[in-house]
Amino acid sequence: MHTAHTRIPPTVELIETPEGPAVRIIDQTLLPGELRMLDLTTIPEVCEAIVSLRVRGAPAIGCAAAAGVAMAAGRSTAADQPGLYMELGGEIARLGATRPTAVNLFWALRRMEHLLDGSPYPNATALAERLALEARAIIEDDLQRCMAIGRHGRELIAPGWRVLTHCNAGALATAGYGTALGVIRAASEAGCIEMVWVDETRPLLQGARLTAWELVSEGIPCTVITDNMAASVMGRGEVDAVVVGADRITRNGDVANKIGTYGVAILAKHHGIPFYVAAPISTVDYDLAEGSQIPIEERRCDEVTHLAGHSDHAVVPGGAGVYNPAFDVTPNELVTAIITEKGVARAPYEPALQQFA
Amino acid sequence: MHTAHTRIPPTVELIETPEGPAVRIIDQTLLPGELRMLDLTTIPEVCEAIVSLRVRGAPAIGCAAAAGVAMAAGRSTAADQPGLYMELGGEIARLGATRPTAVNLFWALRRMEHLLDGSPYPNATALAERLALEARAIIEDDLQRCMAIGRHGRELIAPGWRVLTHCNAGALATAGYGTALGVIRAASEAGCIEMVWVDETRPLLQGARLTAWELVSEGIPCTVITDNMAASVMGRGEVDAVVVGADRITRNGDVANKIGTYGVAILAKHHGIPFYVAAPISTVDYDLAEGSQIPIEERRCDEVTHLAGHSDHAVVPGGAGVYNPAFDVTPNELVTAIITEKGVARAPYEPALQQFA
Repeated sequence: MHTAHTRIPPTVELIETPEGPAVRIIDQTLLPGELRMLDLTTIPEVCEAIVSLRVRGAPAIGCAAAAGVAMAAGRSTAADQPGLYMELGGEIARLGATRPTAVNLFWALRRMEHLLDGSPYPNATALAERLALEARAIIEDDLQRCMAIGRHGRELIAPGWRVLTHCNAGALATAGYGTALGVIRAASEAGCIEMVWVDETRPLLQGARLTAWELVSEGIPCTVITDNMAASVMGRGEVDAVVVGADRITRNGDVANKIGTYGVAILAKHHGIPFYVAAPISTVDYDLAEGSQIPIEERRCDEVTHLAGHSDHAVVPGGAGVYNPAFDVTPNELVTAIITEKGVARAPYEPALQQFA
Repeated sequence: MHTAHTRIPPTVELIETPEGPAVRIIDQTLLPGELRMLDLTTIPEVCEAIVSLRVRGAPAIGCAAAAGVAMAAGRSTAADQPGLYMELGGEIARLGATRPTAVNLFWALRRMEHLLDGSPYPNATALAERLALEARAIIEDDLQRCMAIGRHGRELIAPGWRVLTHCNAGALATAGYGTALGVIRAASEAGCIEMVWVDETRPLLQGARLTAWELVSEGIPCTVITDNMAASVMGRGEVDAVVVGADRITRNGDVANKIGTYGVAILAKHHGIPFYVAAPISTVDYDLAEGSQIPIEERRCDEVTHLAGHSDHAVVPGGAGVYNPAFDVTPNELVTAIITEKGVARAPYEPALQQFA
């Protein structure tokens, strides 16, 4: 089923074990030091994995949540459809409350809830089997969508290009292959990528830890920089394009993505460098008119004050305030194009994205 | 002698001990966790302290180098001026080779060398005493210059302003009071500062560790952000001005400063926020026409790949390239004004800076 040419195991899988179904994920908090798989067998475990960023990236969160619902259904002792719906309704709400910004989470949960609440099934087992199929379809579709994004996106990348990316919108952020890294993988397969500049992406270093790990695994040349070096590298003419992912895109093409994306977009504009956003259509929130309506998650201050995994070592003195928004919003006028599985959208984005709805 | 109203001990002092003179510094690598003074008694110790950033910041490096020459002269057994010059010539070259970008280092060493090589002194002791006087004058002058920079700069800050700064251009980067933080201190004394946004300043976190520590020590409200959050804070209208220091300024007003400064300047321009550079005239290199001529120090990759003080914990996978320039150059067109001890220079910078030469 996992057909992408990638040396990385699936980010999210719904697996069968003798004790019942489980959600198998890569524990991304341990990368790049250790590649460890985790089997999650309860909804609280799935929620913890999402909140702690063991599984992260907008599409991957959607996959993990869908797999979580299917896992819980497969382990349920409910007798019939109403019983299963009553049991899982609260679980779905709990999963939906883990992270507020990425819209794919809500999209995937709605697909699962629609089955629970929809056409009748003869018994809970039949419905649980259908939910498992649905979760696997969401995962497989996401992989296929990423590969389609890659095919569309590689047309925008010319031979010899040096591409900068921020955070991780790779195989680890999706069911596999990646969105922004899907474009970079496809362009690399076409022989076009000379270098990938990887913003380390403070505070949690998804660029340094995850994107660089994926690129090294694939043999694609990459150079890690601290976030504040991007301007300098662009100023020296060493970046031909920026490609990033997205956590939510509004009707007008405003893009919520990892904190720092907005700054990179401004730097790209200043240097005349195209700024591409790669995301599946499930990332577009057609209910929102523009980016200021997107809720932005603020995370714990110790992600900033204590460096990854070193709870004993504060790098900020007591008494100083700390601010830790996880995302920012890039207005559509800074976005050169949005690369989706259905094609490349360009401004004006409202009609362009509506076409793909 | 230390007349600035600051609760922070002197960054660099030439002190007398029973064993001879010593250069006393704050070991800045231990902040904010520990305030520890170090007494340096050999030139290799002074060089190590500069290279390892125990003492850092363009003006402070100049002070430490001058104090180092005076310390070595005071401990020398040379009989006469030629003997002392022969002994110290190599030491001065060694100090000059520690860091390439900040020009104040070379400026301070030239002042010391000028005495060694200049008017005759009756014996080595008299010359050593003169060198000690010169080093103390460089330190005291730097403090006075910072306070003058503060007086000029505070005129540019209006009541209620929220100011963003990058890296540390504070008391710890100078003989005391600071350049960019001198402006902020003076504006705060005038009741004008509502908030200081502090870029943490990867890779070595001088903003989080040092600037926040100074501001907390002074009771000035501050909020630490990761470097990639600056755009978001500006976009929300929460920054009224940016004030940074400088390591070298060329005749035309191009500014070399800590990596990331160029990016902050672009973000400020995009948001219509004034971007001020605060530096003593000794930072201006009148020999260089423009910024591309400034040598940019590249530092060891492990500053990026291993988080501060954790040599066992790599956050970048093996096989990934790493790039670690310590400075970048902000072109003059992004600089609203350069605040010096002699007044505020505005574009066109060449005549404006020439006036202050």
